[in-house]
Order: sequence, then structure tokens, then C-alpha cells
Amino acid sequence: MLNQERIDWMEHNMKECPINHTFKLVGKKFTMLIIRNMIHRDHKRFNQFLEIEDINAKVLSARLKEMEEDGLIERKIYPDKPVRIEYTITEKGRALAPILDQMSAFSMRYCAKDIFKDGKARKLEQVYGYEHYKKGA
Amino acid sequence: MLNQERIDWMEHNMKECPINHTFKLVGKKFTMLIIRNMIHRDHKRFNQFLEIEDINAKVLSARLKEMEEDGLIERKIYPDKPVRIEYTITEKGRALAPILDQMSAFSMRYCAKDIFKDGKARKLEQVYGYEHYKKGA
Repeated sequence: MLNQERIDWMEHNMKECPINHTFKLVGKKFTMLIIRNMIHRDHKRFNQFLEIEDINAKVLSARLKEMEEDGLIERKIYPDKPVRIEYTITEKGRALAPILDQMSAFSMRYCAKDIFKDGKARKLEQVYGYEHYKKGA
Repeated sequence: MLNQERIDWMEHNMKECPINHTFKLVGKKFTMLIIRNMIHRDHKRFNQFLEIEDINAKVLSARLKEMEEDGLIERKIYPDKPVRIEYTITEKGRALAPILDQMSAFSMRYCAKDIFKDGKARKLEQVYGYEHYKKGA
């Protein structure tokens, strides 16, 4: 629990709750899964993101456009034949990695029966590997 | 990026992506804000949660019911006159605190102009206070 002094400071100095603000940026369905695929799998192309669970092309297009407007990703066009389009994650987008990690850690521990075939809880590093964290995801 | 060995292990041993699973638990609008009010403000009563930004009684009722079914909160009835109902957070619900913290840290740094009246980026501990973290939120 926050103490009253902190709460008073926040009410006087903040325009918006930072949790609520982040939720508005990444709370739509698939946004975090697109970020996941960029960070964990190095996905860059539209067709790669179509592998995401239950996504379809129309929703994917909308999400990528919003994410570009919010500065989480960049859209780059390469003048090859045929033209090649790649989506790359920005520094701001990559800064969402700790949220992804805590989301993973939560269900690996508290919903292990839904996550692992053997139903045993695991820590994040046991699954993703310590090497994943050396370079900061 | 995860290495191929990790990805292969995950595909053979996991039933579902842990990020996706957590998102299904807490990705609906207001769920994280209800958890926030329980952890940061020690809110317990229906009327207290009605202070949450843009919420209404109908949606709040639905969220509290889902969160109880998912084991994130408990509903307790006290046989006072009038009857008193309190919602308390479970160990599982409280384990969402690191996700909340990383959501806060993200926008305090990357969206400081939207969060702080002076527009200056801050670290989590500067705003919530180090004492908040001594007892694990």
C-alpha cells in the first residue's frame, strides 16, 4: 500500500495514472503478442505476425498502424522487387520487455497447469534461459 | 531473442504461451486498475472501486465476478446490519504487482509528458517511494 504522503504527491504532480496510460497503449488484444514475436522471435514481416494465436490480417493491420503511431514500432519500406516491408521495434517498444517477462513469470508460477504439459511451476529463467537476459532480452 | 533450442523446448513442453494466458486473465479493461486500487490504496468495498477512472457499476460488478472466479480476489460477506461485503486480494492476485510496477515504470520513463505535470521522466521508486517495495508492495 502507498502511504498518504505519496498519494498526495501523485495527485498534485501527475496528470494520469501511469498504469492506466500503459494499458491504453498496450491493452488491446494482440499488441503484446506482436511485441512478444518481435522481441522473442525477431519477427519483422506481416506474414510472420500472422502466426500469432487467433489473429487475422485485418486486425493485424490495424494493430501495426496503431503501434507505429504510438512509437512502439517502425515501418520500413525496401525498394526491392517486389517491394519489401519490415516492421522493427523501437527503443520504446523494446522497453515493454519487462512487462512481458512479468506476465510470463506470473502464469508460469500461478497457472502452471494451464501452461506446462507436466503442470509444474517454473521460473522465467528456467524457460527462457539465462542467456536471454544477459543482453536485456 | 530466444534461441532455437529454447523455442523447441517450449513447443514440446508448453500448452499455451504464458504471456497470452496472463493477458486473458487481466487484459480486460479495469481488471488491472481494480488490482491497483487493492494493492496501492487498500480498497475493499464496491463503492471505493467506483472511484476508478471511467468505470461504472455494471462493468465493475462483472469484473469483480470474473476476478473472483479466476482466484485473483475473494468476496467476503460480514453479517453486520446492514450486511457488509468486502473484496480482498488473494496471494495470486497480489502476485500481479510486478506487472503493475513494470507498467508504471514504462510510462513514467517513456511517456513522461503524459504522466507528470512537469513532463520529467522519473523512476518507479521516486514516485511510489522505496518503503513501498520493502514489504513487497
